Amino acid sequence: MNQILVLGAGRSSSALISYLIKNAPSGQWQVTVGDVSEAAARARIGTSPHARAIAFSIENTEASRAEIRKADVVISMIPASLHPLVAQLCLSEKKHLLTASYVSEAMKSFAKEAEQKGLLFLNECGLDPGIDHMSAMQVIHKIKAEGGQMISFESFTGGLIAPETDPENPWRYKFTWNPRNVVLAGQGTAKFLQDGKYKYIPYQQLFKRTTSITVPGFGDYEGYANRDSLGYVGVYGLQECQTVLRGTLRNKGYCGAWNILVQLGCCDDTYTMEHVATMSHREYMSAFLDSASSPKGKEEDSVCSMFGLSPNGEEMKRLSWSGLFSDEKIGLDKGTPAQILEHILTKKWKLSPGDKDFIVMWHRFTYRLGGKQKEIQAWLTSTGDDEIQTAMAKTVGLPLAIAYKLLLQGKIKSRGVVIPIMEEIYAPILRELNELGIGLIEREL
Amino acid sequence: MNQILVLGAGRSSSALISYLIKNAPSGQWQVTVGDVSEAAARARIGTSPHARAIAFSIENTEASRAEIRKADVVISMIPASLHPLVAQLCLSEKKHLLTASYVSEAMKSFAKEAEQKGLLFLNECGLDPGIDHMSAMQVIHKIKAEGGQMISFESFTGGLIAPETDPENPWRYKFTWNPRNVVLAGQGTAKFLQDGKYKYIPYQQLFKRTTSITVPGFGDYEGYANRDSLGYVGVYGLQECQTVLRGTLRNKGYCGAWNILVQLGCCDDTYTMEHVATMSHREYMSAFLDSASSPKGKEEDSVCSMFGLSPNGEEMKRLSWSGLFSDEKIGLDKGTPAQILEHILTKKWKLSPGDKDFIVMWHRFTYRLGGKQKEIQAWLTSTGDDEIQTAMAKTVGLPLAIAYKLLLQGKIKSRGVVIPIMEEIYAPILRELNELGIGLIEREL
Repeated sequence: MNQILVLGAGRSSSALISYLIKNAPSGQWQVTVGDVSEAAARARIGTSPHARAIAFSIENTEASRAEIRKADVVISMIPASLHPLVAQLCLSEKKHLLTASYVSEAMKSFAKEAEQKGLLFLNECGLDPGIDHMSAMQVIHKIKAEGGQMISFESFTGGLIAPETDPENPWRYKFTWNPRNVVLAGQGTAKFLQDGKYKYIPYQQLFKRTTSITVPGFGDYEGYANRDSLGYVGVYGLQECQTVLRGTLRNKGYCGAWNILVQLGCCDDTYTMEHVATMSHREYMSAFLDSASSPKGKEEDSVCSMFGLSPNGEEMKRLSWSGLFSDEKIGLDKGTPAQILEHILTKKWKLSPGDKDFIVMWHRFTYRLGGKQKEIQAWLTSTGDDEIQTAMAKTVGLPLAIAYKLLLQGKIKSRGVVIPIMEEIYAPILRELNELGIGLIEREL
Repeated sequence: MNQILVLGAGRSSSALISYLIKNAPSGQWQVTVGDVSEAAARARIGTSPHARAIAFSIENTEASRAEIRKADVVISMIPASLHPLVAQLCLSEKKHLLTASYVSEAMKSFAKEAEQKGLLFLNECGLDPGIDHMSAMQVIHKIKAEGGQMISFESFTGGLIAPETDPENPWRYKFTWNPRNVVLAGQGTAKFLQDGKYKYIPYQQLFKRTTSITVPGFGDYEGYANRDSLGYVGVYGLQECQTVLRGTLRNKGYCGAWNILVQLGCCDDTYTMEHVATMSHREYMSAFLDSASSPKGKEEDSVCSMFGLSPNGEEMKRLSWSGLFSDEKIGLDKGTPAQILEHILTKKWKLSPGDKDFIVMWHRFTYRLGGKQKEIQAWLTSTGDDEIQTAMAKTVGLPLAIAYKLLLQGKIKSRGVVIPIMEEIYAPILRELNELGIGLIEREL
């Protein structure tokens, strides 16, 4: 059980790999890090004698099988869409698999075989999903153990930037995980339960219908609903709840400005635009604008006129700061609106040396106990060390690393396709995270 | 060549089948009408000795093949998604095929084989697409023949209701063709050319960015862009044009009210709603509303507050008239938002006995000739006889019926997958349509 294979040496893997290497001597672990770029894998392991770096591409099935065969446990940090391929090899080679990704329909289909073979396929064990599940379940189990009856559950998480980072950036946001996912965020329909009613928010309303959230000691944020909260009613055992809402948290003003990009169609990933190679940022914006809305033909005026914005307002400040009205060439040969937007935003939203990111998670539970309505709020914040050891990498990677250790120590008995909602998994992970400085503060109101 | 098989006896087939039966004796045609409902096919043919009705389902491949084998020409009015199945049988049985549907990628793939086998697969030969292509090409060819250089081309078509029909209906609209297509209209991104620039309008902007159109003698309408105008730049030979825009025409006020349904997510067809069986119209609306937007919790107030509408304004008048705030049960066991919306709207938008529909088509061409900028407008209107012999059925079906006659007479030489943009097809069809009372008026400005 001491041979571990980590797939993916991208930005989210740094803390995971550091933890594994640091604890390798005491646990007698052998760490292999595979990435399509062997150099990237090599950079992550440094000079550790307990780790080796390999070139790894899951599309190359036989080479992948050979490496997975050598391992006892696989932790996959590659894109979620590739996890079914990893899972199939883990099944046939009888290896445990840990990921931080949502359980897909494909992953669900492996549940029975994994269980029969005595394998743990632990998913959603990062930050969001991950620590959010674990910390919520800890509170929900406690409320239920005391005899409380849940009324509502709301949970929001966001990966932001620390106050001292990029102080001029009006979005208070940079890319700290997969930028493509940020640009495509919220497509589809958000579904949740509110005051006993099923509610549906389409993409075109999502960034308008935000919830204001105050995290004690950290100020005011805004949240938008995640795609599927309904699925967690059963998973969390919240059938008695009137409100179940999971969402994403942003600094104030982000959603209003992002909504303009959504409304214009800049996040569309379904077609490729014409003449991208010669296009400037401004010309990109112009393609989505109603020429008739501005007699002078200035793009800024069109945007203000189409959405009733003030030229000096918060939305325009953010769009202008991002260079969306600049005459700079985009620098891509081709692309969908979403791919081009990601490329333009990356020019300003890429983490620079010394930048620190900042994670905020906030839960609110209301419940009835002894005839009274009560409320618990719980929140977590985490600040990155720098642009490599980010709070995002720590909070996504450390739960997986700790889960590996627990599995190795025989402390996780669950098998099959699971997420970390059972005490045997969440309690020791939350305990160690707390020791590592990543802990939730809980307050009863 | 005198054995014709018409597939589909739905609402759009009435005029087509009437024309074929009426002309059957002189042409010695034998008309077979096939529909999944043999009774529907039988009702369409009446007592004609020149026609027979059969049960026909394209999913039943061998029975379909046997019927297609007996025919010389197939006219397919079944849903466009099924045309590739029809086309494959027509290819293997070496039969001509006529449809009123857009050429799909699948249909395109049959082009070479159809041409090699000497078969005509004529598509987009109804109203829109159909008469719009034919009438536009006639004017464009004339302008080019005179030495003119095209500057812009705009074309809008709508299937509305006659002024005397349903005078209380504030939408001035009823379902005169496939209601599902009306509810899903505009999903995807509209692409067109405007003043030399590529323009893209996403669904969430489409019903806001309307064009005002005055049809001389018929008043003011509003138009929204169709999904793909760019494809017709090459097809129509408009490479020199600065503006190429095809769109859909509605009575004033329709788009503003429809936009509210789009914004709320009522036209979403990607998921099924919960608890539909017990749901009222009002509860359906409530599922898309922001409860927080109306303290009293009245759905009408929420809609007004979310979109800044006046309670007595044009949008609310249309939504209320459609019964969207009524406590009537929907009457479906399950459904997507779009399916449910279609079901609710059908209660008021179904054609009643005696209802007359009304077709409006309008083109504008600007061009340079002899150093001067010139403009031609051309328009067509057509009013239905009643709720069966609709203007929609006439304008969709008659071009196909006439195309069949021309093919039979050896007057159409084109083979392969074509649309009616060549003079040998459009000139005689437009001539006969004009004799049947469906003609365009042309005015040079």
